[in-house]
Amino acid sequence: MSGLGRLIGVGVGPGDPDLMTLKAVRAMQSADVVAHFAKAGNASNARATVARFLRPGVTELPLLYPITTERPADDLMYRSAIQGFFDEAATAVAAHLDAGRTVAVLSEGDPLFFGSYMHLHVRLMKHYPTDVIPGVTGMSGCWSAAGLPIVQGDDVLTVLPGTLDETELIRRLRENDPTVVMKVGRNLSKVRRALIAADRLRNATYVERGTMDDERLMPLVDKSDDLAPYFAIVLVAGRAWNS
Amino acid sequence: MSGLGRLIGVGVGPGDPDLMTLKAVRAMQSADVVAHFAKAGNASNARATVARFLRPGVTELPLLYPITTERPADDLMYRSAIQGFFDEAATAVAAHLDAGRTVAVLSEGDPLFFGSYMHLHVRLMKHYPTDVIPGVTGMSGCWSAAGLPIVQGDDVLTVLPGTLDETELIRRLRENDPTVVMKVGRNLSKVRRALIAADRLRNATYVERGTMDDERLMPLVDKSDDLAPYFAIVLVAGRAWNS
Repeated sequence: MSGLGRLIGVGVGPGDPDLMTLKAVRAMQSADVVAHFAKAGNASNARATVARFLRPGVTELPLLYPITTERPADDLMYRSAIQGFFDEAATAVAAHLDAGRTVAVLSEGDPLFFGSYMHLHVRLMKHYPTDVIPGVTGMSGCWSAAGLPIVQGDDVLTVLPGTLDETELIRRLRENDPTVVMKVGRNLSKVRRALIAADRLRNATYVERGTMDDERLMPLVDKSDDLAPYFAIVLVAGRAWNS
Repeated sequence: MSGLGRLIGVGVGPGDPDLMTLKAVRAMQSADVVAHFAKAGNASNARATVARFLRPGVTELPLLYPITTERPADDLMYRSAIQGFFDEAATAVAAHLDAGRTVAVLSEGDPLFFGSYMHLHVRLMKHYPTDVIPGVTGMSGCWSAAGLPIVQGDDVLTVLPGTLDETELIRRLRENDPTVVMKVGRNLSKVRRALIAADRLRNATYVERGTMDDERLMPLVDKSDDLAPYFAIVLVAGRAWNS
């Protein structure tokens, strides 16, 4: 594959720039092109995290979602539009790789854990040399900020996207595992109802922008509204830490 | 709490020293005391990861498990011995904190995710100022090394300790979620039987020492024996990546 550039998925961690790994900083600083995903009209969160480390004059490649990612994944029009978007993004990245340029694709948290990078990875990994640099996940940032030991010993950890339907959320929460609910956003009222139905609301902690300067953190019972950004997380302690 | 030293749980990541965060390196280099857990007679894995960053002459505090951590958690003698050990370890750390010294406690992976640090945290957090620095988990290191997108969209992630009994492993695996099996070690033959019973063996990847120099990685069906170190991990892809 000589002559081809290298594709690097770079996990930038949960938001605090100091939670980037040494390897991520180095990969980003030596890349020819730095690519980042964002909603059209919005700044990329990942780019904001790495801003202080960007090499002056480096080529940037913004990859702009045409639509929100909060829509249900079984919505056919949404699925078709988003697949088309990832195809186009992969083509834009491939043009740089074909020209021999290394492309670092920034991912909030960890690239292969609910990250958009994976959609480039599966499209390009067979054709180009590829590295993935793991990052600190948003959920690790949140339970560390909360000082909450999430799992120990024989605990099972369950990570649920808040986009699941209410019945499924309740069924999963009734296992009484330590649980992380991701992608809370506009799903917060549903998540709250599911926690009440599973009798676990009192063990739930709400974390917004964990590890960032404007972090907010409180018992979910103390949050009086159901307004939450997409990246808010709810941590639900397991049996061992109930008391 | 003026005059008291600060307790810092430091996640050192999955093993590659370059996967330490900037914050972890800084915290460790500015601490008065660096504490690390290990089995008696063994070197600490976490200390090996950070060796190149240790300040010359820094005070080290090894915390040596009297017994293996692979015993079932419902073994009463084991539980009693291990609780006694964590009490003693907390007392040893507290002596430094009382003297005004900052103590960085190294944790492989992330401190509050199956980490021994949490046992100091719950004993000391009410009495001393405490910080937790999240780290890249071993499982993130493993799925990145394997280039395996573990969860996307509406996927549920399940993290199972290999120490669970076989019936429970089978029940959990039959959910067909993307799954990480931790603490594989001497449980590998049981884990393999459970994967066969749940018809998921073909989706399983075995990873040993992920991100380290001597990393080994293969489809579990290609591994001809059931010998595995404690920190080996099995990744089981979900439905979306079966094909």
